[in-house]
Amino acid sequence: MTETLEDLRKRIDKIDLELLELLNKRGEIVEEIGKIKEAQGTNHYDPVREQELLEVVKKNNQGPFSTPALQHLFKQIFKASLDLQKVETKKVLLV
Amino acid sequence: MTETLEDLRKRIDKIDLELLELLNKRGEIVEEIGKIKEAQGTNHYDPVREQELLEVVKKNNQGPFSTPALQHLFKQIFKASLDLQKVETKKVLLV
Repeated sequence: MTETLEDLRKRIDKIDLELLELLNKRGEIVEEIGKIKEAQGTNHYDPVREQELLEVVKKNNQGPFSTPALQHLFKQIFKASLDLQKVETKKVLLV
Repeated sequence: MTETLEDLRKRIDKIDLELLELLNKRGEIVEEIGKIKEAQGTNHYDPVREQELLEVVKKNNQGPFSTPALQHLFKQIFKASLDLQKVETKKVLLV
């Protein structure tokens, strides 16, 4: 049976909640990484690591999104994650 | 035991693969929705629906990402999804 617009939208809603949960789980891990980097005194931004992650996206993409479209989205996720580390660092500096 | 940078990065890699899979699954559903809208002759961009989805993000966000940061990411996902429908429409028009 063909799914209705309503059915498809319910599936999107479910996926969006999963995406939300995964993104926040990613954020938590990134905060942990930020603390380690802080302690080590190393730079938060790591272009080599970012490039590796973008390669993983390219290698594992089965569509329908194009690899450039997905890499663009992941770059936004990396940027938001880096901003999260900056907020955490600021908190540390304020106390 | 505290996790090492290596352990944390492995967890990020796993999450990124899950994100990739979920995004493409979302893309497939969005393409289905695009076909229905095409058949109905309705507009692909639906600002009311988009606003509803952003409210869902706000309501269900448990952090550490801020709601504006997540809403920004989701807007990028919506935009990429809309672009995907446009590509599909173009394909239909070309055959």
